[in-house]
Amino acid sequence: MEGAAVDHLAHERIRAEFDVEAMKIAWAGSKHAVDVADRMARLVASDPVFKKDNRMMLGRKELFKNTLRKSAHAWRRINELRLTEEEASMLRIFVDEPGYVDLHWGMFVPAIKGQGTDEQQKKWLPLAYKMQIIGCYAQTELGHGSNVQGLETTATFDPKTDEFIIHSPTLTSSKWWPGGLGKISTHAVVYARLITDGKDHGINGFIVQLRSLDDHSPLPGIVVGDIGTKFGNGAYNTMDNGVLQFDHVRIPRNQMLMRVSQVTREGKFVQSDVPRQLLYGTMVYVRQTIVSDASKALSRAVCIAVRYSAVRRQFGSQDGCPETQVIDYKTQQSRLFPLLASAYAFRFVGEWLKWLYRDVTERLQANDFSTLPEAHACTAGLKSLTTSVTADGIEECRKLCGGHGYLCSSGLPELFAVYVPACTYEGDNVVLLLQVARFLMKTVSQLGSGKKPVGTTAYMGSVQHLMQSKCDVLTAEDWLKPSVILEAFEARAIRLAINCAKNISKFPSQEEGFSELSADLLEVAIAHCQLIIVSKFINKVKEDIQGHGVKELLQILCNVYALSLVHKHLGDFISTGYITPKQGALANEQLRFLYAQVRPNAVALVDAFNYTDHYLGSILGRYDGNVYPKLYEEAWKDPLNDTVVPDGYHEYVRPLLKQKFTVSRM
Amino acid sequence: MEGAAVDHLAHERIRAEFDVEAMKIAWAGSKHAVDVADRMARLVASDPVFKKDNRMMLGRKELFKNTLRKSAHAWRRINELRLTEEEASMLRIFVDEPGYVDLHWGMFVPAIKGQGTDEQQKKWLPLAYKMQIIGCYAQTELGHGSNVQGLETTATFDPKTDEFIIHSPTLTSSKWWPGGLGKISTHAVVYARLITDGKDHGINGFIVQLRSLDDHSPLPGIVVGDIGTKFGNGAYNTMDNGVLQFDHVRIPRNQMLMRVSQVTREGKFVQSDVPRQLLYGTMVYVRQTIVSDASKALSRAVCIAVRYSAVRRQFGSQDGCPETQVIDYKTQQSRLFPLLASAYAFRFVGEWLKWLYRDVTERLQANDFSTLPEAHACTAGLKSLTTSVTADGIEECRKLCGGHGYLCSSGLPELFAVYVPACTYEGDNVVLLLQVARFLMKTVSQLGSGKKPVGTTAYMGSVQHLMQSKCDVLTAEDWLKPSVILEAFEARAIRLAINCAKNISKFPSQEEGFSELSADLLEVAIAHCQLIIVSKFINKVKEDIQGHGVKELLQILCNVYALSLVHKHLGDFISTGYITPKQGALANEQLRFLYAQVRPNAVALVDAFNYTDHYLGSILGRYDGNVYPKLYEEAWKDPLNDTVVPDGYHEYVRPLLKQKFTVSRM
Repeated sequence: MEGAAVDHLAHERIRAEFDVEAMKIAWAGSKHAVDVADRMARLVASDPVFKKDNRMMLGRKELFKNTLRKSAHAWRRINELRLTEEEASMLRIFVDEPGYVDLHWGMFVPAIKGQGTDEQQKKWLPLAYKMQIIGCYAQTELGHGSNVQGLETTATFDPKTDEFIIHSPTLTSSKWWPGGLGKISTHAVVYARLITDGKDHGINGFIVQLRSLDDHSPLPGIVVGDIGTKFGNGAYNTMDNGVLQFDHVRIPRNQMLMRVSQVTREGKFVQSDVPRQLLYGTMVYVRQTIVSDASKALSRAVCIAVRYSAVRRQFGSQDGCPETQVIDYKTQQSRLFPLLASAYAFRFVGEWLKWLYRDVTERLQANDFSTLPEAHACTAGLKSLTTSVTADGIEECRKLCGGHGYLCSSGLPELFAVYVPACTYEGDNVVLLLQVARFLMKTVSQLGSGKKPVGTTAYMGSVQHLMQSKCDVLTAEDWLKPSVILEAFEARAIRLAINCAKNISKFPSQEEGFSELSADLLEVAIAHCQLIIVSKFINKVKEDIQGHGVKELLQILCNVYALSLVHKHLGDFISTGYITPKQGALANEQLRFLYAQVRPNAVALVDAFNYTDHYLGSILGRYDGNVYPKLYEEAWKDPLNDTVVPDGYHEYVRPLLKQKFTVSRM
Repeated sequence: MEGAAVDHLAHERIRAEFDVEAMKIAWAGSKHAVDVADRMARLVASDPVFKKDNRMMLGRKELFKNTLRKSAHAWRRINELRLTEEEASMLRIFVDEPGYVDLHWGMFVPAIKGQGTDEQQKKWLPLAYKMQIIGCYAQTELGHGSNVQGLETTATFDPKTDEFIIHSPTLTSSKWWPGGLGKISTHAVVYARLITDGKDHGINGFIVQLRSLDDHSPLPGIVVGDIGTKFGNGAYNTMDNGVLQFDHVRIPRNQMLMRVSQVTREGKFVQSDVPRQLLYGTMVYVRQTIVSDASKALSRAVCIAVRYSAVRRQFGSQDGCPETQVIDYKTQQSRLFPLLASAYAFRFVGEWLKWLYRDVTERLQANDFSTLPEAHACTAGLKSLTTSVTADGIEECRKLCGGHGYLCSSGLPELFAVYVPACTYEGDNVVLLLQVARFLMKTVSQLGSGKKPVGTTAYMGSVQHLMQSKCDVLTAEDWLKPSVILEAFEARAIRLAINCAKNISKFPSQEEGFSELSADLLEVAIAHCQLIIVSKFINKVKEDIQGHGVKELLQILCNVYALSLVHKHLGDFISTGYITPKQGALANEQLRFLYAQVRPNAVALVDAFNYTDHYLGSILGRYDGNVYPKLYEEAWKDPLNDTVVPDGYHEYVRPLLKQKFTVSRM
């Protein structure tokens, strides 16, 4: 059954009704993107240093050391091969292991770039670029996460010495969670309450050296370590999330990041003329990256589950024929295909967010802040929605793989464990949705005022039409019209928002209403964000897309995405009066037809993600579908199988069997 | 901040409006049950051998050896203290670690008891009771799980020697997953296709010795080992789930379990006069245990999340006051309190299932099989529903604990990883729901025939009333009436079922309709099972319950459980025409009032589970709420903190910092 030539899924691939190579381009964004990803993925997959299938068997120390080795090796290869920035970042993606470098490049460098003065950038960035210093981003504390304004660490200016004194006044003020902090970073951007002349000026960032560049020992006044094991085998345990306490640590005044606020030699706190809003640009950037990561993680899980569902057979054997492929069961399709469609939907909304980021950046440079609140709400909401769906979706894919999905060799447990923190970091998903809801309530309240809603809220301008219109679907086929889908999502979103606004106004105060009805507000925000994703998917399909059948398949996936949401949130759509129960049933009927259209294309649709077996890291998701022999092979590698008779048998099992200390009880 | 006398949650406990000691009795079922649990939990917690907080740091071999040690120690203590069966099983629960003994006592012994002849029981049970042999249950195969009839292992009768030849004809026929098989079991009940005289008589059970009782080596013709690492740190990796292959292994004829079917000396296959249905009694028993375990697992997660939500504060600080406890946020309440209510609901439906099992057993003994299909469907559905909700609920509780829930020291990652297999074992949850749906479709089809639906389907007898009636709720308060809630769930369940039956009848064949609409059928089955749980909770509250405020609080929880489901499945309730959108909104309004009533009692309601800190295994869920100092303390125990400078620094980090192999790129 072995050998490179075997393809147990060939019969599936032959059935595809579209050009897979063209779909790869649609997925990746361009031929160039496919090529770069392809080269980098193969480079990583073929390099034994980047081997990752032994991860779940390593103890914490070995695991961590191995990550250090990979990071150094990646850096060496990037330099040896003189890779471009784009290639280097792709290579890091395919190395596929959280490590201190992520924070160094992803948070430390951008913080200095975004918040440092030109002078500070000139001093620190070259050191960081060459990795002569390694940095992390020390914001959250043991007692403080979402509420940045509640941080307790202090940075008190001492005019006598022209220094800040960084201090952790309480246990709960210990920095806690920053990645790369625990064992590796030599420097950190530390967020602390700035105090000058006895006055608290709120949270600011400071560059603080943590460890000696000679022997890596923590500098005086600094206690630093790892915060312990996290969820999963391997997973995020390759990262040294850290704890950090300061005992009156002194740094020069010029290590406060002073692009936006400054402290003068005399200890005066002054705002620079750089607008504070500029900082939000970075947030839009980071969240756009997270949405793009969501589509990556979800598509990996879906790829594994689709391929394995085509390999796995169960029940339905008749007259000696093989059993039915589980992917043919409607129950499997109704759980799996909406996730497949979501992976594509998130990919395209992520692409659109890149455009949004560029647009926001250009406007900011021209001092146009008008779209910022909308862009901010939109990215916050999409970060929340896509990461929640992805985390749940990975676990759903694991369950769709039955018992074998529970084995680490399926790749799904680690994918889940390493992914779920995305629901919490860079803004807790619930907190973010409430921010979106607040923005929506404000937008609703201004609808009569002549202030036109912009960007993704533009549809709210048609409030009168959307409040009165009714869905005109008469047949299941009517649900295939993009205009029908779009209006249904718009009507649902605006009606939920306006209902909620009305209910809030019944409370003594806006704040009380907002707080009492916050669970409903989450649903308002979700409806709005789903509309954004649906509308961007519809726009994508309207584009000129090359390749036989590609556009048609994307159209089908777009409809699956939208109609599965109509079914899932049927209560919203019906109770707001836009659709009737009958129309809801028709949407569900259409959904079944759509699943039947996805079915023959399912394996090819996940092939289009173009993931190597190395990157997938799953025996169930192997390209060649050669699942059972490889599962069997893999089992024997477990340390428990090193010996026939296990450690502990002689001490703890044999005495039982030989009745050495038992008393008969029956 | 330390010390036994500290109780950071005292202010919460004082607020409780009910008698916690009486609630402990209501939860456990009796004063006696509370006492036994209490004694056993303390016995385990105070014994250093049963320590479990280091689990996630151990490698697979150490972890496994440690479990062997615990199992032997538990056995020794059970015998030394001459514990009763009830006490011994409680003790095993509180040891709280999956191990080979679970399968020995939970599957091997019951299989022999249920399927063995009197003679076989007399021979094998005393050996098993004294643990002179250790057994497991070898059913699933690498290629075969849910479909037991598809198993490939063969047991061919050889009349020449009066033996069966047990054989694995293919790779996919390898036994795969049985717990206790990998490294420990000396014997197994092996399920195989019985073949005599060239004829296949389907799946039967056989007692097969696997390992030498002298040196524990596998017997000739047997290949056996562990299947590898599974999801999570610690978690199920304490269990040796195994792989097993037979190469023409011979066993005497009398090792086929012959209570129901027999093979004679001449090789003739005969059915005994013991009815096959008797075997289903065991299934009802096992699934009832699983439902009871679900309430245990969910209540542990909820206990952790409720206590930590009362400790954790975030936002809302004004005028120097502390921040708001996160449990005061409606968003937190709307996710957490329905899970708290579900834990209670599952507990009571589990208790009721014990009654059902006794009832079925008595009937079977009297050759009354009339209630068996209904009991079978009911237990299948409740197993599916409670395990799915519990698995998702544990993960939801983890997310409700924010970032810190991701640390293993929160206990939640391991609780999740160790729990999720319950969704797959003893019947995949989706497969089970389809069985329920099939039963419901049959019941619906017989409604006109005069055959009265029994047990949990009795409500279907009122089909005419339920199809026509309308919900008469006018105010939010009307939703507090048990009769209103019950009829809403009954109407929803029967209307969904009848709609589905109608839609199925439109297909050319019943089978095709069933298969095409199977996703809808899952929803029918869920609606029916939720009705069962709601109605058993309502019945529970009607009982005479002792203790100040206990009944009142249970009434509140019952309403929370029911109305949160109305909100979640609003589409069902409205689209089947039983309630109006307005009534749906009133249910949601009432839900908010109920949350406010739960809030002051939340911590006391989880205290009533009476879990020791040892059993909870969570720093976030500590009884005393002393979370932050203990999290801090725990962090330093991680192996990564053994040294200040981590292994690998000199090889892989220092060369970077010292520019030993980098090329400047910018």
